[in-house]
Amino acid sequence: MGFRLSCWSPRPRMQADPKSQSHSPGAGSDPARASGRSAEIITIGTELLLGQLVDTNTPAIAAELAENGIDVYRTCSVGDNRVRIAEAVREAASRADAVMCAGGLGPTVDDVTRDAIADVAGVALLRDERVADDLRRYFAGLGRTMSANNERQALFPAGAIILENPHGTAPGFALDVGSAIVIALPGPPRELLPMLREKAVPLLRSRWNLAAAIVSRIIRTAGVSESEIDRRIDDLFRSAENPSIAVLTHDGEVIVKVTGKAATAEDARSLCDGLVAQLVARLGECVYSTDGASLPETVGRCLRERGLTLAAAESCTGGLVGALVTSVAGASDYFRGSIVAYGNRAKTQLLDVAPPLIERHGAVSAEVAAAMAEGAKAALEASLAVAVTGIAGPSGGTQDKPVGLVYVALVGEDHTCTVQRLQLPGARDMVQRRAALAALLLVLRTCREKRTGG
Amino acid sequence: MGFRLSCWSPRPRMQADPKSQSHSPGAGSDPARASGRSAEIITIGTELLLGQLVDTNTPAIAAELAENGIDVYRTCSVGDNRVRIAEAVREAASRADAVMCAGGLGPTVDDVTRDAIADVAGVALLRDERVADDLRRYFAGLGRTMSANNERQALFPAGAIILENPHGTAPGFALDVGSAIVIALPGPPRELLPMLREKAVPLLRSRWNLAAAIVSRIIRTAGVSESEIDRRIDDLFRSAENPSIAVLTHDGEVIVKVTGKAATAEDARSLCDGLVAQLVARLGECVYSTDGASLPETVGRCLRERGLTLAAAESCTGGLVGALVTSVAGASDYFRGSIVAYGNRAKTQLLDVAPPLIERHGAVSAEVAAAMAEGAKAALEASLAVAVTGIAGPSGGTQDKPVGLVYVALVGEDHTCTVQRLQLPGARDMVQRRAALAALLLVLRTCREKRTGG
Repeated sequence: MGFRLSCWSPRPRMQADPKSQSHSPGAGSDPARASGRSAEIITIGTELLLGQLVDTNTPAIAAELAENGIDVYRTCSVGDNRVRIAEAVREAASRADAVMCAGGLGPTVDDVTRDAIADVAGVALLRDERVADDLRRYFAGLGRTMSANNERQALFPAGAIILENPHGTAPGFALDVGSAIVIALPGPPRELLPMLREKAVPLLRSRWNLAAAIVSRIIRTAGVSESEIDRRIDDLFRSAENPSIAVLTHDGEVIVKVTGKAATAEDARSLCDGLVAQLVARLGECVYSTDGASLPETVGRCLRERGLTLAAAESCTGGLVGALVTSVAGASDYFRGSIVAYGNRAKTQLLDVAPPLIERHGAVSAEVAAAMAEGAKAALEASLAVAVTGIAGPSGGTQDKPVGLVYVALVGEDHTCTVQRLQLPGARDMVQRRAALAALLLVLRTCREKRTGG
Repeated sequence: MGFRLSCWSPRPRMQADPKSQSHSPGAGSDPARASGRSAEIITIGTELLLGQLVDTNTPAIAAELAENGIDVYRTCSVGDNRVRIAEAVREAASRADAVMCAGGLGPTVDDVTRDAIADVAGVALLRDERVADDLRRYFAGLGRTMSANNERQALFPAGAIILENPHGTAPGFALDVGSAIVIALPGPPRELLPMLREKAVPLLRSRWNLAAAIVSRIIRTAGVSESEIDRRIDDLFRSAENPSIAVLTHDGEVIVKVTGKAATAEDARSLCDGLVAQLVARLGECVYSTDGASLPETVGRCLRERGLTLAAAESCTGGLVGALVTSVAGASDYFRGSIVAYGNRAKTQLLDVAPPLIERHGAVSAEVAAAMAEGAKAALEASLAVAVTGIAGPSGGTQDKPVGLVYVALVGEDHTCTVQRLQLPGARDMVQRRAALAALLLVLRTCREKRTGG
């Protein structure tokens, strides 16, 4: 997967064909991909039971398992309690082929997942000297001595397969418990996610001989609603079995994911390629990447390839365009800067927008947006400049210029100016975010036209 | 609670006292608040098992129960499957005093929570005529006839207490199952959350005679690490029983939550007040609000009260300072704008930073930060100006100036300049975020000094 799952919005998309309802685990599953294997997920941590933490590990693991055709019928969370973890593991191992545990592998006395799993398997914890050496070296590198607590991270249930953790001190492990395999992974997502993809899932795939390869491609879009995407690809969505199509929304963007299964990765990839090409043709100009890259990454790459530089002038986005562009390392190669002219005086003084222009058309107008872009291009000496002005709300709207009205302007190298008038939905933060994404999308389109046009 | 729970970071806070392990549900629980009652949470929906949806209902319900001194030892998710829902409810009801179910009450054939709970209780589903009338009226109001499917929403297990849903068509219900009470709520958060607070929790409180009132206060801090907060308040944290203390981290901020329990809300509030005052005294200058307001809100309020205006000059934050300030509606009252001078030329041309100054000290230096702030103050004609320059990484650091080195400068009305040198931890996005928060915190401190100083 080229994107990280964070807080995805609910996706109330229904499959209209009631037949698909009968496939386990439910309406969204894809019969073509079922492995006949099932797993349960147990996330461990008292903070989960106190509501202090949203559990993003469960959906990340579930999505990864679904990708691999492994069914999940139940997930649970328990606290840092040895007896209750053991109970949950025992029950899950009696129902499923695999039990994925996340959390409770740290160095503190709270972290009792390894003890609980050893209890269920009826084996002792043994110290792994190689891991202990690695840990000692790690602490020596920090100029510290390893504490007795940290030594606990070198203990594993007898017979466990150790799963290395390149991003932290707590290795994971896999252990047979009855007919099930129990896999324990550390809780922090930046440790768990790579281990899940690089160690745990390959282990399950090889053990269960899931020889068929599964490949996913991500089509990222911006500036288009989910319902418009539905409209454009509905027939493909309905008929797609292998490769299958999923539509996800997040923070003003809609992502279309294509997953194919075949005997080899190459075959799976070429299965996907055909459908991806069809979808890209349908979705048109709202597609900004098909390799998982984010919009700021894609814009940056295109600017760099073309040897172009970018400047921005921002009003209602307040700096968000610049913040998005500079979220990418190395943005200084192509980003000159942004002038956040929140008040009209700043628009006049820093962006050279003529006061009569503001008086005549208002600060939220195509004319002022264009003048802001020209001003930023001149002040920051960039080859392209983009400007955003609008009414983010919640107040300040009028009948003529309601909340959500945003103008985005782009001035190119030859001073040609493109202005878009947008009416953006959502609360203040979503209007601001959508406006900033629209600005980046306009930059990308202009930059790409240059590429094809010469 | 004055803040919205979103994706909180894991909180690896340790209690050094192993005795606390014995308190249920874990290290974070507060024995003074325990009601002696326990609950389990079951979220229902196949999309949860496919990883297509992050489950925010579980933490919302768990937090509400924790607030009310009700312990949660386990939570689980199951798909839209009558047998598996019934299994999960039966098991939970055998362990806990209450089982909170969320989801599966809609009108479609997928929605089988009511059937499953009736199965467990061994009762039939009966039609409630009042609810059926309400539903018919609702659909008539929309100019539609109620479908047979929608009539299912008027069915309840015999003996159930119906819980009205002011925000949707699916009422919830409560039903005794053995010694436990099972409460079923609809899945959409905007329906679930008010019903939870207004119907379900009051029902549990009255049934279990939990007469005492529970009040929470939030102390928000910035610019300080969790371990430093631990160091400063450790003794209070350990001794606090009622009111209790919880420490939460989120996006570079650390939040201290004080929860008190007493016979009346007023008494609970005054219990909290004393501890909040003690904590604020200990935590000192890193506290920015005690009423739940965010840092940009607090800064905005202070600037407005003092009649001050703000400008910013940003390098490594790329616009994030401006984006944070303008995330608050009405920021135009006090925010003039920000000059994002990402390259050195922009620093010179827009912020009037002398090139020899950059040559001598480098763009990431106290001298350049101060000059940037002066430049922004002059260009944007603001009473205060803040500047940020630093190395966000991941590359670009040197031994003298490593990744994470950030200078924050503030120039006041009288042109006095304060510069802070910070060494910020974390990846690029966290360095940028922490740098922007540090800039806002410096603005707040200066603004507050003005208030007390005259």
